[in-house]
Amino acid sequence: MGFIGSTLARRLAGLGADVVVVDSLVPDYGGNPFNMDGCGGPGGRVQVNISDIRDPHSLRWLARDREMIFNLAGQTSHMDSMTDPFTDLAINGTAQLSLLEICRQHNQGARIVFASTRQIYGRPRYLPVDEKHPLDPVDVNGINKIAGESYHLLYSKVYGLPTAVLRLTNTYGPRMRIKDARQTFLGVWVRAVVEGRPFEVWGGDQLRDYTYVDDAVDAMMLAMLTPELEGKAFNLGGDRVVSLRETAEILARHSDGTFSTREFPSDRKRIDIGDYYADDTAFRTATGWSPRVSLEEGLRRTVDYYRQHLAHYL
Amino acid sequence: MGFIGSTLARRLAGLGADVVVVDSLVPDYGGNPFNMDGCGGPGGRVQVNISDIRDPHSLRWLARDREMIFNLAGQTSHMDSMTDPFTDLAINGTAQLSLLEICRQHNQGARIVFASTRQIYGRPRYLPVDEKHPLDPVDVNGINKIAGESYHLLYSKVYGLPTAVLRLTNTYGPRMRIKDARQTFLGVWVRAVVEGRPFEVWGGDQLRDYTYVDDAVDAMMLAMLTPELEGKAFNLGGDRVVSLRETAEILARHSDGTFSTREFPSDRKRIDIGDYYADDTAFRTATGWSPRVSLEEGLRRTVDYYRQHLAHYL
Repeated sequence: MGFIGSTLARRLAGLGADVVVVDSLVPDYGGNPFNMDGCGGPGGRVQVNISDIRDPHSLRWLARDREMIFNLAGQTSHMDSMTDPFTDLAINGTAQLSLLEICRQHNQGARIVFASTRQIYGRPRYLPVDEKHPLDPVDVNGINKIAGESYHLLYSKVYGLPTAVLRLTNTYGPRMRIKDARQTFLGVWVRAVVEGRPFEVWGGDQLRDYTYVDDAVDAMMLAMLTPELEGKAFNLGGDRVVSLRETAEILARHSDGTFSTREFPSDRKRIDIGDYYADDTAFRTATGWSPRVSLEEGLRRTVDYYRQHLAHYL
Repeated sequence: MGFIGSTLARRLAGLGADVVVVDSLVPDYGGNPFNMDGCGGPGGRVQVNISDIRDPHSLRWLARDREMIFNLAGQTSHMDSMTDPFTDLAINGTAQLSLLEICRQHNQGARIVFASTRQIYGRPRYLPVDEKHPLDPVDVNGINKIAGESYHLLYSKVYGLPTAVLRLTNTYGPRMRIKDARQTFLGVWVRAVVEGRPFEVWGGDQLRDYTYVDDAVDAMMLAMLTPELEGKAFNLGGDRVVSLRETAEILARHSDGTFSTREFPSDRKRIDIGDYYADDTAFRTATGWSPRVSLEEGLRRTVDYYRQHLAHYL
């Protein structure tokens, strides 16, 4: 019931799929029951199951008869991974191994797409970052996400489980967390704009690429349906490279918002990664994917969504 | 009380150090109380403490006032990591994080040397393998050892804990496990020779490098005493590159042993890594280390040791 998972579930249900959404609703993680509004709940098109990926018993029951598993379960906060590294490891490491062991033992045919992250590359040594770029994470979260995706690739190679890995960059759009910066700084910006407050840009020159959530969902479905991706990890990028400042200007222009800039806070610097943008040629070539929603259009849609639904995200 | 740890502890005690050896004596792991014969036990020069690195309470007590921590605690069996991946992760992942958290909170000045493994490189893409070689482990053990060493390097970068990582290759010598192949195939070979039976060579063309245990102990002590190594991982190699067949011939020649060759078993092939030998120039340059015991001399000493002490290793 998080940001990308709920968008994906809604799309799949719209296509007629039999969908079970699994979320633990850990406070302050991404899950928000409102994200399933109109399609979850009694009589809805999507079955919602509240349980934790760290619980192998419920997971065994839930995973054993599924054809496809979109594995987006994760702890995503970089700060949390430093203050509570064991919880991060339990979710991003041990629980991932648990899902794969369950599939190996009870559901070897299940196709799995695992959502990984650009964070595992650390500070880019060259740009754009392709999949051969060394992995050099700057936090415990990155180390554990590497373990999580490595288990997926290993279980594909050794046991033939059909798994593929997508390394996501900044995904944004309706249903993202905007209460705070735990998911993306864009959430905080959008919230400020919708509440009529100026937002703050830390730095400004950093280069980023962004994926609109519908494009990310397209990519995950294509990853699921493209057997050539099995046992491999692919970057996912956006429609173009933009500086933080330009991103802020686009958002402000499309929402009548305002912003100020300040220096990057020194206590965050040690986990800052500088510029990042992905080379996702391999994924585009293998699947034919390309982003369909521009940053301008995506930010406009995002602001419109929160203007309508703000109360459900605070 | 395992192979390398006990040899290191004995050496340190001989130099007058105040040494505590921590081992859980998990059956079938490397720990063997006989390895401390003559220097552990009541009145011995080394204090032996039986406890498990997975137990954070005993670990906190043991780690809080140490100047130097040689961290060799690990699950090393590649087969075990596939049949019981959770135990491997608990020891090689979670418990490592636990040691580092304890040092961060209670003993920030402790210098730590972590014993990693060549296994994390997987099947070499080029030879010799230097530290820039991509990490592509072929088993769960390799994935978890990457996490373990990454935590060490991260805690050095982020919190300034003085840690260094050594990626060991085939270490051999007195006190290694010879009961079975859980530690190294050389153990099985040496046991057969000492028991007067022919040993079996699987394949024969595979290239390897070997480090005699006293040279590995030298390397760990130099790693501990060389501040330039902090926050980095270094390969450790041997005196030269040898094929399995040549290794067998040397062992046979120095022990009046005999051997036969057979094809590499197909059920092991999926985790076999082919040829491997390390480029350890970086470590040699930084520390001045070079191996002092040739393979011929090392194998001779090893066979002599087990001729005398065989009963304690079966």
